[in-house]
Amino acid sequence: MSRKTADDSAPIALSTAFASFEELWSPRIVTRVNDYDVRVAKVAGEHVWHAHDDTDEFFLVVEGELHISLREDGAERTVTLPRGSVFTVPQGVEHRPYAPSGASILMFEPTGTLSVGDRHEEIPGHVDATTGHALDA
Amino acid sequence: MSRKTADDSAPIALSTAFASFEELWSPRIVTRVNDYDVRVAKVAGEHVWHAHDDTDEFFLVVEGELHISLREDGAERTVTLPRGSVFTVPQGVEHRPYAPSGASILMFEPTGTLSVGDRHEEIPGHVDATTGHALDA
Repeated sequence: MSRKTADDSAPIALSTAFASFEELWSPRIVTRVNDYDVRVAKVAGEHVWHAHDDTDEFFLVVEGELHISLREDGAERTVTLPRGSVFTVPQGVEHRPYAPSGASILMFEPTGTLSVGDRHEEIPGHVDATTGHALDA
Repeated sequence: MSRKTADDSAPIALSTAFASFEELWSPRIVTRVNDYDVRVAKVAGEHVWHAHDDTDEFFLVVEGELHISLREDGAERTVTLPRGSVFTVPQGVEHRPYAPSGASILMFEPTGTLSVGDRHEEIPGHVDATTGHALDA
């Protein structure tokens, strides 16, 4: 079942997509691939610890640098994604993205995936709990 | 069901991934997201007209410029993706990617998706019919 609409009939420049909003930690859906969303977000500072029980989550850093802390097998580690690098957080793994100097990121995850996961710590005001907003570019 | 392996435990720089192979139109799998692959490919010249009957196909241009000709509703058109732009080819739509000056691209598609689709014209020697190769970076 295709979800394509007229909005999807032309390529989208990521620079245009990022220029169309200012909100941090508030993903925009740039296109869909079957039952998956391609989302972009501007981020700065810290997100919350959270986990997606039913899905992996893919990150590509378009600008800036993103860190992702991970809790696996009782230990905590942090991976660093410079611009132009990719990483997939495995299903069920608690993680906390953060970007002290800010970053622009692209994510790939099933449509309906909540930005704060299925389990999370208290959500501060600067983090948007969303399944992704329409892109208004 | 996670497909994560030790190879997926660290971020991958796309520049390193692209530097690890020279073959054109021969996608490498950089990571998996549930039952989907994230693939990268170097391309130059023309691919073949083909269609994926059961899936959309996502393209992000990392370097260079990619064109994709599309046959929809009995008409043919071409979209152009400069560096940093994205496009999803809808399921079932015949398409032919080409890049006269070359490009480096990233794709999302279900694991097992054949690079030449389920229907295609005769495959020339410079096009690799593959479900994606392991990245050897």
